[in-house]
Amino acid sequence: MHKVLRELDVDLGERSYPIIIGQGLLGSFDLTPWVAGNQVMIVTNETVAPLYLEKARACFPGKTVDVVTLPDGEKYKDWQTLNLIFDGLLENRHTRKTTIAALGGGVVGDMAGFAAACYQRGVPFIQIPTTLLSQVDSSVGGKTGINHPLGKNMVGAFHQPQAVLIDTDSLATLPPREVSAGLAEVIKYGLIREEPFLGWLEQHIDELVRLEPAALGEAIYRSCLCKAEVVALDEKEGGLRAILNLGHTFGHAIETYAGYGNWLHGEAVGTGMLMAADLSVREGNITPADRDRAAELIRRARLPELAPEGMTEDDFMSLMAVDKKNVDGKLRLVLMKALGYAYVTDEAAPGNIQATLNAFIR
Amino acid sequence: MHKVLRELDVDLGERSYPIIIGQGLLGSFDLTPWVAGNQVMIVTNETVAPLYLEKARACFPGKTVDVVTLPDGEKYKDWQTLNLIFDGLLENRHTRKTTIAALGGGVVGDMAGFAAACYQRGVPFIQIPTTLLSQVDSSVGGKTGINHPLGKNMVGAFHQPQAVLIDTDSLATLPPREVSAGLAEVIKYGLIREEPFLGWLEQHIDELVRLEPAALGEAIYRSCLCKAEVVALDEKEGGLRAILNLGHTFGHAIETYAGYGNWLHGEAVGTGMLMAADLSVREGNITPADRDRAAELIRRARLPELAPEGMTEDDFMSLMAVDKKNVDGKLRLVLMKALGYAYVTDEAAPGNIQATLNAFIR
Repeated sequence: MHKVLRELDVDLGERSYPIIIGQGLLGSFDLTPWVAGNQVMIVTNETVAPLYLEKARACFPGKTVDVVTLPDGEKYKDWQTLNLIFDGLLENRHTRKTTIAALGGGVVGDMAGFAAACYQRGVPFIQIPTTLLSQVDSSVGGKTGINHPLGKNMVGAFHQPQAVLIDTDSLATLPPREVSAGLAEVIKYGLIREEPFLGWLEQHIDELVRLEPAALGEAIYRSCLCKAEVVALDEKEGGLRAILNLGHTFGHAIETYAGYGNWLHGEAVGTGMLMAADLSVREGNITPADRDRAAELIRRARLPELAPEGMTEDDFMSLMAVDKKNVDGKLRLVLMKALGYAYVTDEAAPGNIQATLNAFIR
Repeated sequence: MHKVLRELDVDLGERSYPIIIGQGLLGSFDLTPWVAGNQVMIVTNETVAPLYLEKARACFPGKTVDVVTLPDGEKYKDWQTLNLIFDGLLENRHTRKTTIAALGGGVVGDMAGFAAACYQRGVPFIQIPTTLLSQVDSSVGGKTGINHPLGKNMVGAFHQPQAVLIDTDSLATLPPREVSAGLAEVIKYGLIREEPFLGWLEQHIDELVRLEPAALGEAIYRSCLCKAEVVALDEKEGGLRAILNLGHTFGHAIETYAGYGNWLHGEAVGTGMLMAADLSVREGNITPADRDRAAELIRRARLPELAPEGMTEDDFMSLMAVDKKNVDGKLRLVLMKALGYAYVTDEAAPGNIQATLNAFIR
């Protein structure tokens, strides 16, 4: 049977919820204590369904469980695909007492969560993330949404889950590129807020790349804890929470340029964090040796270290101009004051930004 | 210049906002105290824009004002049209500090409000309702959303405005059918909660049909006050607020059957309220004389009194089964215990429901 390794609570007052981390949870862990009504709609995708759908069903004994299976990929994170969820809910006459369960990676979680935020103006949902990235990042924090041709995650809502169930066994079927993409976000927590965790990662990054369970459990727990702390301090992204976007402004530009799905989100964030580290050196905040420590971790996690072939400085500037962290037209970036201490600024010198962009284009 | 006739506050704690009712407000009332950033996006439609767009612009002195003009009609209350708002926001690089202003009727308000709820996971918005229906109903309460082919308002969010500006002069250009549709909701407030207001309406309904300003101002104020009180008591529709749906379960079925836009929402609600009154008689709550008082007001407001040609009992039952007020498969209806006292029940006798349906189909 299953084994719960770790459990933590995301403290958001009346919207607080637990994250349960363990092995063998899918198939036997009872999620019905977090289901208020009789109906459950599992939202998953074509890749995950054959692997884990029947096990996920078993987590809702006694409930009427329907399923919507989406096509797999970031390029389907759009309204047309989101509508498949609404179609399924309405065709199966799900009322506003239904619970939506997201079974899959970040795209499934974002879309199922947004569907839950909007269906009949809001119904409860449960996250069952099956990728490393979604386990350490998108399952915590309540951000949901879809992409728009002019920008990522431009349409969405804050909607907190009732519970998050993380089964580390589900990582066994994950392609190596996706493991690396997840590790980018794990490294991020070290860079923005947890210098000691960076040291732990330098000792264990190879075990993580090899998917060794003990290391994975610890990395997921420490990542969720870090994110949960930041989110609890700043649920709606008024201030502190913005540091979770380290590497994301550069990264979103890369993703948009490459076309959604060609670069994985975590890959783009990996390169974006290197760019942020580089700019932090130019701004006089951290040393070249600090930057190289970050670069070494990114490299050992097998993440890309340069922008996509052909992407120019102008491409970056134009794509970053629509980033939603900008305020009244000023480019807002997350940089590091030190390793393990990120901050938000809209005052990076344009010449330094230009120099960093030129150091990373090919 | 303008003249503020009435002002009331919708009390929702930190989401409280004012409703300003007056004559000549469009063109001269300064709304910038409710605009936090530099950008404003006015969302309007092709009918309203030629009449009031330039006057609405003048309410935002010193701000950068962009405009999205939607096609006019309930049938455009869908994702494709909603996306025009997101396109306009992104093309004009509106940041998360932008303010969206809805200039038009209920459809524009619902769509602009939902766009505001979702754009970058939520930006502020202001309502400038220009129809009687939207002034007395959809501008108060924070409900936003779009339709789905399988049901009205199935996708949406609760999102409160920063302020609501109601200019009674804008009713001068309203077609008579839309005046009647608005009066349906005005009458509703009397039926659900304000018996004295019913008496007032019996004295003034003809003045309202003729759009006499003094009567209009009073009716709008009393309607907003009633709705604001109900919403303040129950923001997220946990209980009391459901009484605002008097006539809506039957009405939504009619609208869906007729095809969105063929019957106006208020027209369908008018007939739906008569059906609810009829069922309330059959349930033994009110007298036939009470029902006839309601019917007389509906008639004097020039609203339809029977279901659409060709609509059957089966059509009603099937369309009402997906109503989002239902819980776990039980049909939930708003009925009257007495004139001026509505309640919610899922225990109306099936035989009585059937009899009411048969009394209103042709």
